[in-house]
Amino acid sequence: MNEPGHPASFDGQASAAIGDLTGLLDALRATAAERDRDGGHAAQEKQWIADAGLLTLAVPREFGGAGAPWPAIYATIRAIARVDSALAHLLGFQCLQVVSVDVWGNPAQRARYLRGTVEARWWWGNAVNPLDTRLVATATTDGGFRLNGQKGFCSGTRGSQMMTVSAHDPQTGKPIFAVVPTTRDGITVNEDWNPIGQRQTDSGSVSFAQVKIEADEVLHRSETPPTPHATLRTLVSQLVLTNLFVGIAQGALEEARRYVTQNGRPWISSGVEKATDDPYLIQRFGEMRLQTVSAEALTERAAQALENAWQKGAALSAEERAHVALATSEAKILAHRAALEVSQNLFDACGARATHAPLALDRFWRNARVHTLHDPLDYRVRDVGRYALSGTLPDVSLYT
Amino acid sequence: MNEPGHPASFDGQASAAIGDLTGLLDALRATAAERDRDGGHAAQEKQWIADAGLLTLAVPREFGGAGAPWPAIYATIRAIARVDSALAHLLGFQCLQVVSVDVWGNPAQRARYLRGTVEARWWWGNAVNPLDTRLVATATTDGGFRLNGQKGFCSGTRGSQMMTVSAHDPQTGKPIFAVVPTTRDGITVNEDWNPIGQRQTDSGSVSFAQVKIEADEVLHRSETPPTPHATLRTLVSQLVLTNLFVGIAQGALEEARRYVTQNGRPWISSGVEKATDDPYLIQRFGEMRLQTVSAEALTERAAQALENAWQKGAALSAEERAHVALATSEAKILAHRAALEVSQNLFDACGARATHAPLALDRFWRNARVHTLHDPLDYRVRDVGRYALSGTLPDVSLYT
Amino acid sequence: MNEPGHPASFDGQASAAIGDLTGLLDALRATAAERDRDGGHAAQEKQWIADAGLLTLAVPREFGGAGAPWPAIYATIRAIARVDSALAHLLGFQCLQVVSVDVWGNPAQRARYLRGTVEARWWWGNAVNPLDTRLVATATTDGGFRLNGQKGFCSGTRGSQMMTVSAHDPQTGKPIFAVVPTTRDGITVNEDWNPIGQRQTDSGSVSFAQVKIEADEVLHRSETPPTPHATLRTLVSQLVLTNLFVGIAQGALEEARRYVTQNGRPWISSGVEKATDDPYLIQRFGEMRLQTVSAEALTERAAQALENAWQKGAALSAEERAHVALATSEAKILAHRAALEVSQNLFDACGARATHAPLALDRFWRNARVHTLHDPLDYRVRDVGRYALSGTLPDVSLYT
Amino acid sequence: MNEPGHPASFDGQASAAIGDLTGLLDALRATAAERDRDGGHAAQEKQWIADAGLLTLAVPREFGGAGAPWPAIYATIRAIARVDSALAHLLGFQCLQVVSVDVWGNPAQRARYLRGTVEARWWWGNAVNPLDTRLVATATTDGGFRLNGQKGFCSGTRGSQMMTVSAHDPQTGKPIFAVVPTTRDGITVNEDWNPIGQRQTDSGSVSFAQVKIEADEVLHRSETPPTPHATLRTLVSQLVLTNLFVGIAQGALEEARRYVTQNGRPWISSGVEKATDDPYLIQRFGEMRLQTVSAEALTERAAQALENAWQKGAALSAEERAHVALATSEAKILAHRAALEVSQNLFDACGARATHAPLALDRFWRNARVHTLHDPLDYRVRDVGRYALSGTLPDVSLYT
Repeated sequence: MNEPGHPASFDGQASAAIGDLTGLLDALRATAAERDRDGGHAAQEKQWIADAGLLTLAVPREFGGAGAPWPAIYATIRAIARVDSALAHLLGFQCLQVVSVDVWGNPAQRARYLRGTVEARWWWGNAVNPLDTRLVATATTDGGFRLNGQKGFCSGTRGSQMMTVSAHDPQTGKPIFAVVPTTRDGITVNEDWNPIGQRQTDSGSVSFAQVKIEADEVLHRSETPPTPHATLRTLVSQLVLTNLFVGIAQGALEEARRYVTQNGRPWISSGVEKATDDPYLIQRFGEMRLQTVSAEALTERAAQALENAWQKGAALSAEERAHVALATSEAKILAHRAALEVSQNLFDACGARATHAPLALDRFWRNARVHTLHDPLDYRVRDVGRYALSGTLPDVSLYT
Repeated sequence: MNEPGHPASFDGQASAAIGDLTGLLDALRATAAERDRDGGHAAQEKQWIADAGLLTLAVPREFGGAGAPWPAIYATIRAIARVDSALAHLLGFQCLQVVSVDVWGNPAQRARYLRGTVEARWWWGNAVNPLDTRLVATATTDGGFRLNGQKGFCSGTRGSQMMTVSAHDPQTGKPIFAVVPTTRDGITVNEDWNPIGQRQTDSGSVSFAQVKIEADEVLHRSETPPTPHATLRTLVSQLVLTNLFVGIAQGALEEARRYVTQNGRPWISSGVEKATDDPYLIQRFGEMRLQTVSAEALTERAAQALENAWQKGAALSAEERAHVALATSEAKILAHRAALEVSQNLFDACGARATHAPLALDRFWRNARVHTLHDPLDYRVRDVGRYALSGTLPDVSLYT
Repeated sequence: MNEPGHPASFDGQASAAIGDLTGLLDALRATAAERDRDGGHAAQEKQWIADAGLLTLAVPREFGGAGAPWPAIYATIRAIARVDSALAHLLGFQCLQVVSVDVWGNPAQRARYLRGTVEARWWWGNAVNPLDTRLVATATTDGGFRLNGQKGFCSGTRGSQMMTVSAHDPQTGKPIFAVVPTTRDGITVNEDWNPIGQRQTDSGSVSFAQVKIEADEVLHRSETPPTPHATLRTLVSQLVLTNLFVGIAQGALEEARRYVTQNGRPWISSGVEKATDDPYLIQRFGEMRLQTVSAEALTERAAQALENAWQKGAALSAEERAHVALATSEAKILAHRAALEVSQNLFDACGARATHAPLALDRFWRNARVHTLHDPLDYRVRDVGRYALSGTLPDVSLYT
Repeated sequence: MNEPGHPASFDGQASAAIGDLTGLLDALRATAAERDRDGGHAAQEKQWIADAGLLTLAVPREFGGAGAPWPAIYATIRAIARVDSALAHLLGFQCLQVVSVDVWGNPAQRARYLRGTVEARWWWGNAVNPLDTRLVATATTDGGFRLNGQKGFCSGTRGSQMMTVSAHDPQTGKPIFAVVPTTRDGITVNEDWNPIGQRQTDSGSVSFAQVKIEADEVLHRSETPPTPHATLRTLVSQLVLTNLFVGIAQGALEEARRYVTQNGRPWISSGVEKATDDPYLIQRFGEMRLQTVSAEALTERAAQALENAWQKGAALSAEERAHVALATSEAKILAHRAALEVSQNLFDACGARATHAPLALDRFWRNARVHTLHDPLDYRVRDVGRYALSGTLPDVSLYT
């Protein structure tokens, strides 16, 4: 990964990805433009990721997983995001579902599902979104539920073997959480994901018709209040997004570098012989790198803070957890901006011919643009500002 | 055009477009997303533009044209660019070809081609690009030429009746310029235009095989040196681009306003009841408008400067012309940045659901991105900086 | 004013200042650094401004004044602000007091005070600030008042002959407005103005002890509601500030140009022989000019809008007035930012030796910084954003 | 230091300063505004710093010093810079002179001067600047030199006991380097330091008249080429500046927070009851903090890279050293911008009354402005850009 000019070659200060990903990354990059155009499901590529042993990154060692520290997990996600941020999202959400089971499951569930992930190499999909109450859970007499309705933005469900799901229980007015095999009767994964970017995250809707949830599939997340450690799940999720943004920025910078090195021609009035000697082009690359490394540094800082907090387990205090949330928000804001700016400036660096559609060099910007809209940047800045002005730490929420 | 919130409703200070374009604009907007996806040739829409009488905006009144002042011509182009910057480009380049004939033609040519444009409602294409020397002109004994070779980026040629063309004459080492009907034997307009934005500008390549240019089709542009007035053509062209950028920014702002007004929902932790009361959303619209009106103000200033210079005709001095070039560069830089920033921020204003591909709300950014790369922004800033630091006015060049 | 590189040399598009100010400007510039250091009252320099005939710029011709159009008045203020923004503020507030009498006075008062300004060459001070209620007016039986208390930020009172004043009338709960000679018994102009910039605006506090206001000195401003035309006074005031900001930006750019031209040395690793050939220095000047001309263009646009509205007199509608307010806010935001950024970047352009205290090149930034804080920028952006998002025009207020 | 809202309270991720500095920092802060106004020599305050045991931070333990790791040394400098960046500069340059002796001295010199620094509590001044060749060294027959001439920008010499000095040897055309007691006959420290900021860094000129340098005072720096480890001295110096910038940003943010918390009043049209609830003020603090923590994170990263490199000693390769230089440049650029922007925005946060001169809240900006001009930011961005575009690492130079 440390070829000249690559944003990751930061004197070894950024965390290293797990394993030798060179072959995987080259293969993903080779078809990224084409798959961005076609959208749809990347069955073959997901197989490669599974073959590289990455499905169990976040599974604790006691269940046979890699049990990797968070900085290493995120470095891996970031490395993939450089060449394909949609597939990196799938890997990130795989880790997130694993964590969901890990923090919400009882000992038997953790053993069953986490060990199962190792042994059966399950891909996990996500149908958890407590704000979307269209999916209704009706309690059955055996302690289980029947699910009926619809969920949107179910990343990774298409092509998955297992999924986590949340549903609205009208009797209690609260959500229930469960694990269910994707092939369970009554579940239909719809092929309706059609955004301007991140086109292969398999984030379409899922329909549920009389889907049976067994009693031992229900996750006991809804304990009140959740422990600070359990709420780290939200920060795991936010740092997945953050690292995707950083990866997009790094990937865009890398593509710009390649393009200019291979195709760049000096501007007619520049007075230089090679594009790489153009003083203004050099300056653009400088600014792109500065945005990228700033985002990367804050992201690494937040990943290390998460790791420290994660290791504390039940001993983690709410205030300590809130400081990780703050660090995460700071990193996410910088990464959001870096991804957009670098992917936009890529074109000023490369010039008009780089807009040829088959090159799909705009995919970095479109991917960044789609992915940076989960929650408004402004409210994340507000959280940072409240702390800076009044010392108020962010509350636990769906996004912080 | 002056509905509430519209960037053009600037107390009447911006120039007005020519005629009532409401029907045309509504019709173009209705299919803009779809046509952006499909690309290709907009035969029907070009017909509507012709029907609106806009093909002769720049044709002097003596030949039956509208002979409109530049601020009004650009206001018209800008109005169309708000809903469809590709078709606005076609109209802008129509005006540019008319001007080319006007400043490079002899009296007979001006009469024939300009009056012809009025009478036959010709659409003009552009195959003038002296930097591209692949098209070779071989002199014939009758004072004409034979053309063989290829030209790229020939905006507007597909579907046109007439075109201007430049070709390399190896005997003199200089370019020749001519007018030729697009249907002339040996001319093939290739359907190979496939960019990430501005997809309907018909800017593919044109092949020439033994194409005969008659003596009276040769334009006498290559007089040495051209008069300051003749070199205003370059500024006409640069201000077409500039007004497209302003129109894109205005259009993106307008779409953002519509979307938020119709679909906006307040953020869960915003504490407001309507999205339009969100303090941060208001601020984003404020900044988007500020970028847009700044660009618009400098662009109007430059259009007025061009008009003043144009009216001077042969009396125009090189220094006066250079001040118009400076004003044009200043406007173009602001407009370039406004188009990119506003079309990017549209999404922060509208939120995640606005990234649904069929809405094609990213077309503003993609259109801006493709169109802002004709020449590097940095070298335009350099021209402005040289004047600010040393009082050096920009030279006449292909871009200034 | 149109020397090479000067921001005003904009192809004659910016309005021209009134009269030949060269001598005055040179004289003010020669001692500006020294007077910035010492602060206090600029008696001599105010005399020069009076001698140049500028005290009656805003006095209507019917009373013997220049009756100049607003664009010309502001061009004059801006020209002075380039070399001394404190004295330009005094001139701007002179015009503002003249306007106050013009819009609030009855015919007799207008005749007396406006003609008096022409004949006696009065400098006017400002003690109008309805938000500051420490100055109390007690009605006397003759229709006049007694004033007791204190006013802060009374620009121009020191050294003035006349002043406008507002005071709180506890009986009505409303402010009264009056004109009073500065030498009236009981008035003490305190020498307590000591800010980090704008040090010679004579904006200290004024104490009033049993100060008699005669019945015919009371201005009838408090009519309810004021006409749109009368409320243009606020916009006159806001555009004074705006033009000061533009003048500061232009002045800082001009000083940077002079300094680099005279003292600039190429950086050791720049590879150029003259500082003026440094590609990055050229780019800095380009950006400084772009900020300056953008602010200037919007400011000119607002001045022209004010002039158009002013000419309508009683026929001016509230909506038309609100559009002038919007244009003013847009200009003021751009000018605020330009003044700060250009005066900060002056040093990056000039280098370390430019920080020698006796040069006082930081005065541009300090002047900008003090003057840009009358009201928060953010609320002005909010006004612009509300219009852009919802079409809501700004209300009449103390600042808009 | 970790009170609520303080930028350093970053979940313990930033390095900790050495010792309990609370008393020292409070004392320095109490008189910072006054001393900024008066300039001159801070004898008392330098005594306090010495009393706090900070003069030997960089002296290796083998000579009785603290031998602190670089992240801790810089955290200490940064903590002082928050309240007084001039005195922090003196401490930073004390460390730099200690390092100069450490890397340039022979064993006897290292023992004598470094142990002497511990035992006699010397303050060191800096008269090393190879670009300034006005100070001439004439070799004497005993292996020493006579110095005659002048040096500028001699930070810390006033009030020092020892100094390092460079001088031009016309016989060899190269500089010589030496240590000399500041009280040596013929040395005059001139009181001519009068900048707009950083007013107590004692950085005036020093005159030398027939000053004798003994043979054993000559440092053997001029070995060709210096080892990568020896050239780390330049990076030590650059990171001193970088940490001053970060400290200025943090200090400005902290003063803004205090001011708003204590004096802030809600804006009349804000609709909130307390300034600390103002949505736009919160956003400003958010942005100020984001700039500050980004700069801090890159600065910590660079300090850790320096420490790693420093520990490698003679084994350090040129490439490894160059990566530290790159990380240092990246940090310095971010810190430069953060210091300027935060200290400028302090006023938008605090409002007009914060410009009262005795508060001297502009000292953060003036300090930042003076200190950020040692070398042009643009050339540092160029270094980063060359690496990003071409993989070219920065050369060893006086600044990198």
